[in-house]
Amino acid sequence: METKGISKAVIKRLPRYYRYLGELLEENVERISSNDLSIKMKVTASQIRQDLNNFGGFGQQGYGYNVQHLYSEIGKILGLETTHPMIILGAGNLGQALANYSDFEKRGFKLVGVFDINPDLEGVPLRNVKIQMLKDLPLFLKETPVEIAILTLPKNNAKEIADILIANGIKAIWNFAHIDLDTPEDVIVENVHLSESLMTLSYNISQYQQEHKDRRSNS
Amino acid sequence: METKGISKAVIKRLPRYYRYLGELLEENVERISSNDLSIKMKVTASQIRQDLNNFGGFGQQGYGYNVQHLYSEIGKILGLETTHPMIILGAGNLGQALANYSDFEKRGFKLVGVFDINPDLEGVPLRNVKIQMLKDLPLFLKETPVEIAILTLPKNNAKEIADILIANGIKAIWNFAHIDLDTPEDVIVENVHLSESLMTLSYNISQYQQEHKDRRSNS
Repeated sequence: METKGISKAVIKRLPRYYRYLGELLEENVERISSNDLSIKMKVTASQIRQDLNNFGGFGQQGYGYNVQHLYSEIGKILGLETTHPMIILGAGNLGQALANYSDFEKRGFKLVGVFDINPDLEGVPLRNVKIQMLKDLPLFLKETPVEIAILTLPKNNAKEIADILIANGIKAIWNFAHIDLDTPEDVIVENVHLSESLMTLSYNISQYQQEHKDRRSNS
Repeated sequence: METKGISKAVIKRLPRYYRYLGELLEENVERISSNDLSIKMKVTASQIRQDLNNFGGFGQQGYGYNVQHLYSEIGKILGLETTHPMIILGAGNLGQALANYSDFEKRGFKLVGVFDINPDLEGVPLRNVKIQMLKDLPLFLKETPVEIAILTLPKNNAKEIADILIANGIKAIWNFAHIDLDTPEDVIVENVHLSESLMTLSYNISQYQQEHKDRRSNS
């Protein structure tokens, strides 16, 4: 399948299509028109058609979309048809929260290791995986196929651990540490910077309050 | 300060500027040229100048930026000079992780309440705040000023709780539930959809693997 040159905006929307189609499946909906899908998702029907045309379409004139087919095709595009073994670095609250997301495993993201620096946690099971010590990480990576490393460590440790991961062949990092990682070109990093998300919210709050005040003082 | 019509892309970059300037302050750097800042942040110097010009500039020809001044000005723009009382709905691992982020409080995001549905958690302290039951939420909101509500509940409960929040005057929701909330126009929602972030990562992994395979079979 040819998917080069697809814009980031389209790629960001794909998981949302996938989520909505999954909900339709749960409701036993077999087919849906692009109009109905557009109402549900609050994007225009032409946007949906345009987005999906990037991957060859999937719709049929006068029929709309077969929900199961579209769901599994988008799943394939998102790489969800294969298993992605992953490890969590940092078994604090956030690491535990991610380890316990049952939805991840359903979609092929399989937890195969959890590492921490705190000796009290050694051997404690987290979703059937025993927590190991970070010093054992390099050996583990030599012996176990791992695709995704999830960084839920404080920023001071994140850099060092990222270097160890990369030196041991990890090509995909889901980074929750409050830092931009310096990685080679062939390593894919997806950042979740929670503080920055919260600041975006507070920016929008203060903008709203400002506008509200302006409007009141103008009236 | 006039900040209307500022693009979302600029707003998304502001917290990152703020983070880097904070790091410079920790390193006792007093001033920095837009060139040096651009190298550190891996954006062009003209991008930085352009972004900051949206808010009136702050740089001086031949001097660069005063780090402390720029840091506090961006903090003001981000609404970090005021206190934002917030509550967490859902005291599971993710709620606990967010409650324990000490950085949030430093920036004015003050936890004033935590709510859950699990009676075993009633009265258990989380960062000096005792967990309350969700049924007590409406009364709490009538008595306590709250600006931000953090939704870390399963999607089935999130909709109902969001309605209660909105009915009781909450105007800002930080939403971690795997759902798009249906909110009135004057309610600000910032979504963190973790599954979608992970799927974006797996999309990029499968694209990379595809390209890699194509290249190998072409050579």
